[in-house]
Amino acid sequence: MTNPGKHHGPGGLFLEDLRVGQRFTSGSHAVDEAQIKAFAGQFDPQPFHLDDTTAKSTLFGGLAASGWHTAAITMRLLVDGGAPIAGGIVGAGGEISWPKPTRPGDILQVESEVLEVTPSRSRADRGMVTVRSETRNQRGEVVQTLTAKLVVPRRPSAADKHASFEGGESVATIR
Amino acid sequence: MTNPGKHHGPGGLFLEDLRVGQRFTSGSHAVDEAQIKAFAGQFDPQPFHLDDTTAKSTLFGGLAASGWHTAAITMRLLVDGGAPIAGGIVGAGGEISWPKPTRPGDILQVESEVLEVTPSRSRADRGMVTVRSETRNQRGEVVQTLTAKLVVPRRPSAADKHASFEGGESVATIR
Repeated sequence: MTNPGKHHGPGGLFLEDLRVGQRFTSGSHAVDEAQIKAFAGQFDPQPFHLDDTTAKSTLFGGLAASGWHTAAITMRLLVDGGAPIAGGIVGAGGEISWPKPTRPGDILQVESEVLEVTPSRSRADRGMVTVRSETRNQRGEVVQTLTAKLVVPRRPSAADKHASFEGGESVATIR
Repeated sequence: MTNPGKHHGPGGLFLEDLRVGQRFTSGSHAVDEAQIKAFAGQFDPQPFHLDDTTAKSTLFGGLAASGWHTAAITMRLLVDGGAPIAGGIVGAGGEISWPKPTRPGDILQVESEVLEVTPSRSRADRGMVTVRSETRNQRGEVVQTLTAKLVVPRRPSAADKHASFEGGESVATIR
């Protein structure tokens, strides 16, 4: 990965630190033909991801990265500072789309926004955070949108001190 | 990849060949610790994907594959015969979830079902097909569900012969 993202302290952000509308910017990563072919050779060996000449006569009109490669690069950019979550980035799932393919020479960067912060009803020590991440190329074109549900820990001391969240839910059923 | 999936003819299935409820079974792939660490080192370098000892004290309770690694393996199984679509597997996006982590030693296999077949309104030569793919381990536990929207070509001769589909839509606006 070329440039690191902006970091937000050594430990990352806990559930209490996250707010709807909060945004993060990742570092950037330059994609080349060799990377595209290496990923495709291992996980998505289809002609439009492996050979530029063959790719020209397909729907892609030229060599394009596997969408799963774009997803994997996006994850790396998020892990490298693009989503500074305490305890790491643990996704339960989400929605993904690839409006445009990633091409050789593209420089990718990820902009993320917090859409939802939901304390767990059953686990006092965590919550779910919905984050929308747009992966753009150097022309500002979106190559991937990912709306992911992440498991985010509460700050340990806060979880011990409070018996309920703002919403009034009881949260101490499991601990 | 260990075993190839069932193949459905050399050219794969066109839009006209796909029906709601149709099912496909992939071959299988055995995941080991080295694969998990290699993928994570490149795309998701978080402790629970890299080191078994550190992973024990995390939410995962032991070494687990990156969700994107499970997704990439699933794609490989689909490409290798698990989703025999003419022209290849081209996804516009979808919904993904990881109900359980993939572990070292897991043997993954993908069961797919066609949920929806929709001819394009604007392009006579293609349509969208929604496919739900469940990736299971050797104990039958689902480690990933993916509901993907695929771009599927119509059989070329059929696209030339017919001016409309069953739904009565006009489809020849671009060609």
